[in-house]
Amino acid sequence: MLLDRITQPSDLKSLDLAQLEQLAQEIREFLITTLSSTGGHLAPNLGVVELTLALHYLFDSPNDKLIFDVGHQAYVHKLLTGRKDRFPTLRKYKGLCGFVKRSESEHDVWEAGHSSTSLSAAMGMAAARDLQGKKNKVVALIGDGALTGGMAFEALNHIGHEKKNLTVVLNDNEMSIAPNVGALHNYLCKVRSDKTYIKTKEEVESLLKKVPAIGGTLAAWAEKVKDSLKYLVVSGVLFEELGYTYFGPIDGHNLSSLLETFRQAEKVEGPVLVHVVTTKGKGYAPAEADSHTWHGLGAYKIESGQVVKSAGPPMYTEVFGKTLIELAERDERIVAVTPAMPSGSGLIKFAEKFPNRMIDVGIAEQHAATMCAAMAMEGMKPVFAVYSTFLQRAYDQVVHDIARQNLNVVFAIDRAGFVGPDGETHHGVYDIAYLRHVPNMTIMMPMDENELRHMLYTAVQYDGGPIAVRYPRIQGTGAPWNDELRALPIGRWETVRDGGDAVVLAVGPMVQLALETAEKLAAEGVSLRVVNARFLKPLDAAMLSALADERLPIVTIEEGAAAGGFGGAVLEWMSGHGVYDVPIRVMGVPDAFIEHGSIQEQRAEVGLTSDRLAETVRTMRAGVQATYAAKPLMTGTNK
Amino acid sequence: MLLDRITQPSDLKSLDLAQLEQLAQEIREFLITTLSSTGGHLAPNLGVVELTLALHYLFDSPNDKLIFDVGHQAYVHKLLTGRKDRFPTLRKYKGLCGFVKRSESEHDVWEAGHSSTSLSAAMGMAAARDLQGKKNKVVALIGDGALTGGMAFEALNHIGHEKKNLTVVLNDNEMSIAPNVGALHNYLCKVRSDKTYIKTKEEVESLLKKVPAIGGTLAAWAEKVKDSLKYLVVSGVLFEELGYTYFGPIDGHNLSSLLETFRQAEKVEGPVLVHVVTTKGKGYAPAEADSHTWHGLGAYKIESGQVVKSAGPPMYTEVFGKTLIELAERDERIVAVTPAMPSGSGLIKFAEKFPNRMIDVGIAEQHAATMCAAMAMEGMKPVFAVYSTFLQRAYDQVVHDIARQNLNVVFAIDRAGFVGPDGETHHGVYDIAYLRHVPNMTIMMPMDENELRHMLYTAVQYDGGPIAVRYPRIQGTGAPWNDELRALPIGRWETVRDGGDAVVLAVGPMVQLALETAEKLAAEGVSLRVVNARFLKPLDAAMLSALADERLPIVTIEEGAAAGGFGGAVLEWMSGHGVYDVPIRVMGVPDAFIEHGSIQEQRAEVGLTSDRLAETVRTMRAGVQATYAAKPLMTGTNK
Repeated sequence: MLLDRITQPSDLKSLDLAQLEQLAQEIREFLITTLSSTGGHLAPNLGVVELTLALHYLFDSPNDKLIFDVGHQAYVHKLLTGRKDRFPTLRKYKGLCGFVKRSESEHDVWEAGHSSTSLSAAMGMAAARDLQGKKNKVVALIGDGALTGGMAFEALNHIGHEKKNLTVVLNDNEMSIAPNVGALHNYLCKVRSDKTYIKTKEEVESLLKKVPAIGGTLAAWAEKVKDSLKYLVVSGVLFEELGYTYFGPIDGHNLSSLLETFRQAEKVEGPVLVHVVTTKGKGYAPAEADSHTWHGLGAYKIESGQVVKSAGPPMYTEVFGKTLIELAERDERIVAVTPAMPSGSGLIKFAEKFPNRMIDVGIAEQHAATMCAAMAMEGMKPVFAVYSTFLQRAYDQVVHDIARQNLNVVFAIDRAGFVGPDGETHHGVYDIAYLRHVPNMTIMMPMDENELRHMLYTAVQYDGGPIAVRYPRIQGTGAPWNDELRALPIGRWETVRDGGDAVVLAVGPMVQLALETAEKLAAEGVSLRVVNARFLKPLDAAMLSALADERLPIVTIEEGAAAGGFGGAVLEWMSGHGVYDVPIRVMGVPDAFIEHGSIQEQRAEVGLTSDRLAETVRTMRAGVQATYAAKPLMTGTNK
Repeated sequence: MLLDRITQPSDLKSLDLAQLEQLAQEIREFLITTLSSTGGHLAPNLGVVELTLALHYLFDSPNDKLIFDVGHQAYVHKLLTGRKDRFPTLRKYKGLCGFVKRSESEHDVWEAGHSSTSLSAAMGMAAARDLQGKKNKVVALIGDGALTGGMAFEALNHIGHEKKNLTVVLNDNEMSIAPNVGALHNYLCKVRSDKTYIKTKEEVESLLKKVPAIGGTLAAWAEKVKDSLKYLVVSGVLFEELGYTYFGPIDGHNLSSLLETFRQAEKVEGPVLVHVVTTKGKGYAPAEADSHTWHGLGAYKIESGQVVKSAGPPMYTEVFGKTLIELAERDERIVAVTPAMPSGSGLIKFAEKFPNRMIDVGIAEQHAATMCAAMAMEGMKPVFAVYSTFLQRAYDQVVHDIARQNLNVVFAIDRAGFVGPDGETHHGVYDIAYLRHVPNMTIMMPMDENELRHMLYTAVQYDGGPIAVRYPRIQGTGAPWNDELRALPIGRWETVRDGGDAVVLAVGPMVQLALETAEKLAAEGVSLRVVNARFLKPLDAAMLSALADERLPIVTIEEGAAAGGFGGAVLEWMSGHGVYDVPIRVMGVPDAFIEHGSIQEQRAEVGLTSDRLAETVRTMRAGVQATYAAKPLMTGTNK
């Protein structure tokens, strides 16, 4: 096998075209086979086999910088840079990362799990290179979907202005994650269908030569018409106008035209854009036919193309999608908004049912949030379905446009907490901390999928401003669904298990964990009260006040950053009410980025386990018992 | 005076062109006179006098929606909607807001202090209108500078795709706040100089008619050449490619061509872009000559155009600019990056001195942050100079690109704390809360301008990851500068006044306020210790540990959101170390948006005053004394 002989990109240089093509074939087979057990981003990687080969064949990595936009399309790159043997550990705990990872290889020069960052990275690397008088090349590979992200345009605009020497490879697969939307997409479609223009360039030129020689103004205008041929024959006028030399569109699965085009492009001064058309899932029929499903997935059966599904209760995502349909049937104001994640957010059926009330804006979280603000202002009830990690992109829009104007936007924040195999770029562990300090926000998290339904109902009923429901990337608990949806009282928690020795204020899936812990502690004679702290903001002031009087040890537990999170909010409440003597411990995600693995492994790594919770309760009780036995409790001074 | 007779936009309808022109003149005079005492955004508003008149003359506000991108260009709109009498209170406490403000008028339909939001707002309003079967018009007015912001492009792309009926008015003044950068800007320049193309359209068409009739392919091609005239004669090809019908460029100070163009544009189905060329500061010579200075400013003398300057110590901004020059002279790795704020960030002289090491990316905070990440990766030391409120736009890039990859990017966060007259859209009160939970971040704030210098030195020396220095929009304390710059030990606070009765942990300008309070309390026999908590992250663990042992009442005070802020960090530290019995109070900005006024008024409104601090210390001491006298202190269980 040729692939076994490639341990670094330089091993490619001696191959001829036929060998490169054979290698492409071997890589495809390897990916289809390996990912059938590990899962992963199959379709995107099958689409970039020849492209990645061509880039590594022509450029000199790591001296030349190959930047992948959203590192999940870097599997081929990983194979070519000595990591083939680690593929069976792909996306597993302590295994090969599913994204570009600098600690894995010197060829990994830029990490990204969020899209649209590669052009900014390329600009920064080119600027540093020029300031340092270096000569290396910089190549950014970006998909057509990622190009609609605002920051990609900011960079495109800046690069075009600065005229830096760098190459933008536009990997145009006509749909990146979801079918693409946006005028830019329409434009690219047109460009692709304009291919014939190129070969007849000469014909047109000869036509114009036949225009009778006329003096004066008209002669000058004939010249201008010739100039305007640029617009006629160069398909990439939009990019040309922004300062790029445009090449393309070229077939991204034809190695020889890829190599030829990149060789031409190398000779150009200033920024170059090479427009490569690829097919997602190329070479594996099921993935070509449904690149949607095959974008990123778990294990599958190679022959049948059947995806291995896990049994058990539905995912929270699915419950969200179903419930939103029920709600939208009753309330015409509801409009679902997604930034290119209709499938990931469980909105496919909603879109079928309410095509006019489902707006997919493409990868454009900022625009999505502010558009929701304006829709709410006009009396609609926009439901912005977004992953916690991607809502980070719209933090300013949440503060400045939605919360400041106090508009009734519903946030359906999916992937809250750990996300498992996607790892550190995708965890939803900051949203409590970045939303809690925003005035006018209400934030909820359900303890099970039944409560998620009531929370969604609560959210669309609510007219007091922005309201968020966050839920995890896991299956529900199997809780039965109530037929009747009801609005939860805002800012009211629920005691789900009584107990008199200590209290745990638990958020979302941590309620289940706390209940298990309570069971365990009961066997030791410790009676642990478990509270479902379903409102992260506002807090339940009445319950906190009662807890302040009881003076039991309190543990807060959340699958989110401990700094500035829910636990911090409880501490602030007590301090703000002059309660200085209630022992409170905060359990959450520590101040570090947590790598890929299963959600269970990630929870274990940071101590969000039943054992650790039990231990914390025991420790606190021991300390408190010892202290309290010796003397009476201090009284809060000005509660 | 005609202006006195206009109390609502409908009053315009009866005016003829000559009267509208007279009104424009009156408005200019009114603005120049009134703002000479109030200050405000003079130049932008002088640039849109005729444009605003034309829009209000033709459209039916508030039924039709006029959306201003960055509401500081809405003074003329305010004058035409019945707010003339309130102009002497402009930007003052409880006075007229300097931005669009919904609570002021039904004609104010969209608030914005941050740029580039208007197109998303327009899309949302158009989507709501269509879903509700309404017929109103939607018009968004956006500057050429704001158009470079990524979210504006996201919206432009989405609108072009959805083909919504709405009008985008591109107010192209060739520089919005700072001279514009970006390929889009170059493109617009070209379009402006292409004006002559339009009038000769007919000539070209007639030229092409003279092409001899040829059969077959060439005839077909002749047709295509005619189609391509679009590219030749319609200057706005870039916008046409994105799905807009383009009108322009037109003279934004010629009322008759404005009216004619908008009337034509109204007849078009789908999105329209009207490209209007205006002159910032139009009609007031000093502002036309230097629209930079006259963008937004304080009081000035009308005759001489002299800006009234306040005496006293330098602004922190100025100290930053000077110090960065000193540092850059010694360290070639330093590159300053600004998102369109070279002047506001005190970098004008830096740019003159190091033109190659100063990168103005335009309004593009996301790109700026990620570009800095890449530069740091390649060994440079980028200093991202950005206002606290605008860094909100790059929150995700800070988390995902900079902190996650732990890169040595220096953040110079200006306008931290209250900002005075710009009000609620511009306060820098969230950055502690949105940065503190980000792993790998270090955050500092100086107590005076001398310390700012050492912190900048510390930041550029530091090689442990991202590091931020935040500083306020005020003058320094007048502290003398040390000649020698020195690196501060990371995570070490400083006791600036000793005291044995209570401790205040103060941040930035609050140190000065705490010192004043200590003086006051000393007269009552209360000895207040004042700590300059100059590192907001990491905290000074050694000092906190000592404080835990001392068990004195502690007050934290910061000009930032109390939720999730520095005070919360102190509470979390104590809780995390098993210290449950030290009384701590957090003083900061409450959970609300604080309106415009002076910084003193804003501090007073939220209780960040010496009186309130003194009162808090007294209350805590009273409570603690009463309690502590009765019984010994409880011991922290597992510190």
